[in-house]
Amino acid sequence: MKSMEYRKFVETRRKLNEKVLSRGTLITKRFFNLDTSVYRPGKLDTKTKELMGLVASMVLRCDDCIRYHLVRCVQEGLSDEEIFEAFDVALVVGGSIVIPHLRRAVDFLEELRGMQENGETISL
Amino acid sequence: MKSMEYRKFVETRRKLNEKVLSRGTLITKRFFNLDTSVYRPGKLDTKTKELMGLVASMVLRCDDCIRYHLVRCVQEGLSDEEIFEAFDVALVVGGSIVIPHLRRAVDFLEELRGMQENGETISL
Amino acid sequence: MKSMEYRKFVETRRKLNEKVLSRGTLITKRFFNLDTSVYRPGKLDTKTKELMGLVASMVLRCDDCIRYHLVRCVQEGLSDEEIFEAFDVALVVGGSIVIPHLRRAVDFLEELRGMQENGETISL
Amino acid sequence: MKSMEYRKFVETRRKLNEKVLSRGTLITKRFFNLDTSVYRPGKLDTKTKELMGLVASMVLRCDDCIRYHLVRCVQEGLSDEEIFEAFDVALVVGGSIVIPHLRRAVDFLEELRGMQENGETISL
Amino acid sequence: MKSMEYRKFVETRRKLNEKVLSRGTLITKRFFNLDTSVYRPGKLDTKTKELMGLVASMVLRCDDCIRYHLVRCVQEGLSDEEIFEAFDVALVVGGSIVIPHLRRAVDFLEELRGMQENGETISL
Amino acid sequence: MKSMEYRKFVETRRKLNEKVLSRGTLITKRFFNLDTSVYRPGKLDTKTKELMGLVASMVLRCDDCIRYHLVRCVQEGLSDEEIFEAFDVALVVGGSIVIPHLRRAVDFLEELRGMQENGETISL
Repeated sequence: MKSMEYRKFVETRRKLNEKVLSRGTLITKRFFNLDTSVYRPGKLDTKTKELMGLVASMVLRCDDCIRYHLVRCVQEGLSDEEIFEAFDVALVVGGSIVIPHLRRAVDFLEELRGMQENGETISL
Repeated sequence: MKSMEYRKFVETRRKLNEKVLSRGTLITKRFFNLDTSVYRPGKLDTKTKELMGLVASMVLRCDDCIRYHLVRCVQEGLSDEEIFEAFDVALVVGGSIVIPHLRRAVDFLEELRGMQENGETISL
Repeated sequence: MKSMEYRKFVETRRKLNEKVLSRGTLITKRFFNLDTSVYRPGKLDTKTKELMGLVASMVLRCDDCIRYHLVRCVQEGLSDEEIFEAFDVALVVGGSIVIPHLRRAVDFLEELRGMQENGETISL
Repeated sequence: MKSMEYRKFVETRRKLNEKVLSRGTLITKRFFNLDTSVYRPGKLDTKTKELMGLVASMVLRCDDCIRYHLVRCVQEGLSDEEIFEAFDVALVVGGSIVIPHLRRAVDFLEELRGMQENGETISL
Repeated sequence: MKSMEYRKFVETRRKLNEKVLSRGTLITKRFFNLDTSVYRPGKLDTKTKELMGLVASMVLRCDDCIRYHLVRCVQEGLSDEEIFEAFDVALVVGGSIVIPHLRRAVDFLEELRGMQENGETISL
Repeated sequence: MKSMEYRKFVETRRKLNEKVLSRGTLITKRFFNLDTSVYRPGKLDTKTKELMGLVASMVLRCDDCIRYHLVRCVQEGLSDEEIFEAFDVALVVGGSIVIPHLRRAVDFLEELRGMQENGETISL
């Protein structure tokens, strides 16, 4: 019940990613590979990279991208306090136009925390 | 019946703003305060400021922000003729990419006018 | 059944365009005229212009605009291979932030192809 | 001396607009006409429309567009107090990313005021 | 003399691309490769792809990207008439905010044509 | 000699910030305060916050903002390897449209490193 938005997001994303990758060109596939590789730990750890991805997604105002990085942030063990500080950076850099996305982000994060409390698995 | 979009918008906004503000940091709260203060009358009256907020929201293509400023414009007593001239500025500055948002804005404005005709209160 | 997204898109677009044009100013109408004229064949054919419109809509991340140009691309007889190469340009120019729109575009294109297979008419 | 940025802006704009319009298509010309018409007084006066154009230009972060609307705002007799309130709306809506443009806008406005004090004509 | 903007653009681009690629990570290099591959002829020819890149660059308002694609369009033998039709699509989709970039694009295109008339080589 | 871009950036920024703050409203000042506060260490350290600010500035394509955060990243002791990984996230999220900003960022970073080698102070 609590994980409704999460479920819709994950299932749609999986189903459509499959379509894109089964039909996309070699360039499409290589771009998707890059998009995965870039968040792998290097000199910066994955937590930092996911926070950067989250802030970038918020200032560019892409709800699906925000949801993706919120799932990843939660999986990486980031606390709400840390995530809200990232929200603040996005809010100040991007302005009030970010607020509607912030609202939905806070709601989605709450849903993910509810799932964690219920011992539900959060995967992508 | 006619006020369906309005109701969904206002209720979601209220519920989620509460979540954001109850959980947000001091910086989040201070940003939200600024966002309220900036539309208060000064040398420019609130009508002008709301029109500026409306046009900014349209060229940045944020439906929720557009809905918010449309409610405020209607509350401030702006006529449809005035609002459509603001729409035109947004359309010419922002280009055809604004059109889908313009469509939804016109629909939402019609809903607000229907509420006014029925004597319903429009609040945020 | 398969043409659900298509139907919702076309009907909403028609209904709301009518509202906008019946209530809009002379400037609104002139802008809409320009928006139609610009895709008419000239030195460049309509196929090329629709592909440019599609890529512009994707990098600006406007789902309704993408859907519009996908319908037009299919009407003009562009193949999936050609459309996916346009998707790739948009993806590389616009970055991973385009991916959620790409997913929905691929899904919508599949729906349009399903309609073609069933002999259904695709119009705007 | 004081009007250096102004002069460069106005001269480049004139020279290049001429090139664009002498070589552009009918659609280019019609778009430029729309762009002029939309700021003409209607139900809203030109002051309000120029302020809306200014705020739209700031949140979209286009220095040349900001300069154009600042010249127009000064020509229309708007005070610095009024213009700074428009700056504030742009800053809060658009976020800190607007600040570099705000800096240059304040500098340019100062230049225009210096010209006024010297009795120089401000035209486009 | 006439090729001043062109020379500055090409030299800066070369020098800085070298720096980026000599110091960038494997991901940077792979991204740059994708960015080259995506304009290679496939089901769509390079002309069409460059026009799509040009329009995308204009609506995203990136002068350097516009310059790059203009050079490529000229190299591919596209006529001014064809390029101006692409400008129009960008102008209508992206709105008046595109105009300053259109001005500079027309000026740069004129410079490239002057070079062609003088028999100068246009390369990247 | 090597610190030319840095000097121009810092001096212009200081001079114009002074103008903005001496003439701006209370709201302008409060916004500038927020913009400073949001990068102070909290649950996330300043390094992480500056990296988030850098990536946000790159995907929003604001050269001055990029320069600001590069200075701060260097002041905070971040290595080139770490900064280039942030560049990569911005490049993949924001697409090839980010490349011209990346080029200038790499050039500016090199200038800052040259200053460090010469024992010059880097301040804002």
